[in-house]
Amino acid sequence: MTAPDTLARLEATIAERRSADPSTSYVARLNAKGLRKIAQKVGEEGTETVIAALVEDKAALVGEAADLIFHLMVLLGAKDVPLADVLAELDRREGVSGIAEKASRPKD
Amino acid sequence: MTAPDTLARLEATIAERRSADPSTSYVARLNAKGLRKIAQKVGEEGTETVIAALVEDKAALVGEAADLIFHLMVLLGAKDVPLADVLAELDRREGVSGIAEKASRPKD
Amino acid sequence: MTAPDTLARLEATIAERRSADPSTSYVARLNAKGLRKIAQKVGEEGTETVIAALVEDKAALVGEAADLIFHLMVLLGAKDVPLADVLAELDRREGVSGIAEKASRPKD
Amino acid sequence: MTAPDTLARLEATIAERRSADPSTSYVARLNAKGLRKIAQKVGEEGTETVIAALVEDKAALVGEAADLIFHLMVLLGAKDVPLADVLAELDRREGVSGIAEKASRPKD
Repeated sequence: MTAPDTLARLEATIAERRSADPSTSYVARLNAKGLRKIAQKVGEEGTETVIAALVEDKAALVGEAADLIFHLMVLLGAKDVPLADVLAELDRREGVSGIAEKASRPKD
Repeated sequence: MTAPDTLARLEATIAERRSADPSTSYVARLNAKGLRKIAQKVGEEGTETVIAALVEDKAALVGEAADLIFHLMVLLGAKDVPLADVLAELDRREGVSGIAEKASRPKD
Repeated sequence: MTAPDTLARLEATIAERRSADPSTSYVARLNAKGLRKIAQKVGEEGTETVIAALVEDKAALVGEAADLIFHLMVLLGAKDVPLADVLAELDRREGVSGIAEKASRPKD
Repeated sequence: MTAPDTLARLEATIAERRSADPSTSYVARLNAKGLRKIAQKVGEEGTETVIAALVEDKAALVGEAADLIFHLMVLLGAKDVPLADVLAELDRREGVSGIAEKASRPKD
């Protein structure tokens, strides 16, 4: 099983578990709590990733980055946004004008 | 160019730009500012993703999720953590015991 | 001018500047950008406070904590929530049952 | 008991509880977990304040703002930073050059 398959498989698993029994599925439980709770988890995992990168070891950063991607994908699923749309946006930015496009955005 | 290639290509681009001229590369500029600034951007994009999911439209969420993944990959690159390690961790969690593994973690 | 006056004075200043000219007032500028932008700043300053506490010196933490309180007060002002309500809530928690009340909350 | 006393009293309570029994004091429990955990809570409460401001009612915002201030004060206490230093910094900014000082900072 190669790395590129991981996110596609995870997306399918999340879609399947969304309607599972909350007592046995973490994804179902998060969805039952609603979008705010899912979004809140993304914010929390962002903070934990920051902390791991600054004061913990690589293994901790790997774990927090995995948590962040996992919860981001639960959030995208809850909003019916395919991961492919996000990847296409990353492709588009790189294709059109490279990192320079990002550099020129007002917020940076 | 298919979606699964996007992150591998982005990782290679980020690695290549890290030592580029900060005046022409956003990645080089972020790295020149140091790890704190890169981590801070991950935290900021996490917050912006939360906001987009709750009060903006799908296009905004796609853009913020792309920003979050992009900056997370710059952070992983700055810490010499291959994306493959993060994907392997996601595989491992799913392989060992599925979403139940996540559900059983103390922090949830 | 004693410390306890600081927040009351700051709240009055923020209320007064809210309708000022955005070209001369940061508070007016933030309010002109809207609630999302103000909320986003609170999230960002939260992250910067985390970073300062973990890897910077005390002076940096003082600066970030001041930024966080300042933007929180701009947010409260934008939502017409008096700081007194927040302080009353802190009093209430301590009065009713002390820190134990906090300890018993489900989310902890 | 007037509002201006709230934060001074809270600061004293937090200082007193820091060395209490973790089984009966939330502040002692947080401190026993260490600075990372306290900082993480500040980040989390920042995110929850953002969410409350954008999609919840005023009572929820009051509660989250109180949580944020409370955990910020636990963090300041753990770093031996007096709240007075943060208030003095807010005074200084307003005294020297008003909101304009903030407006002129590079990061904005």
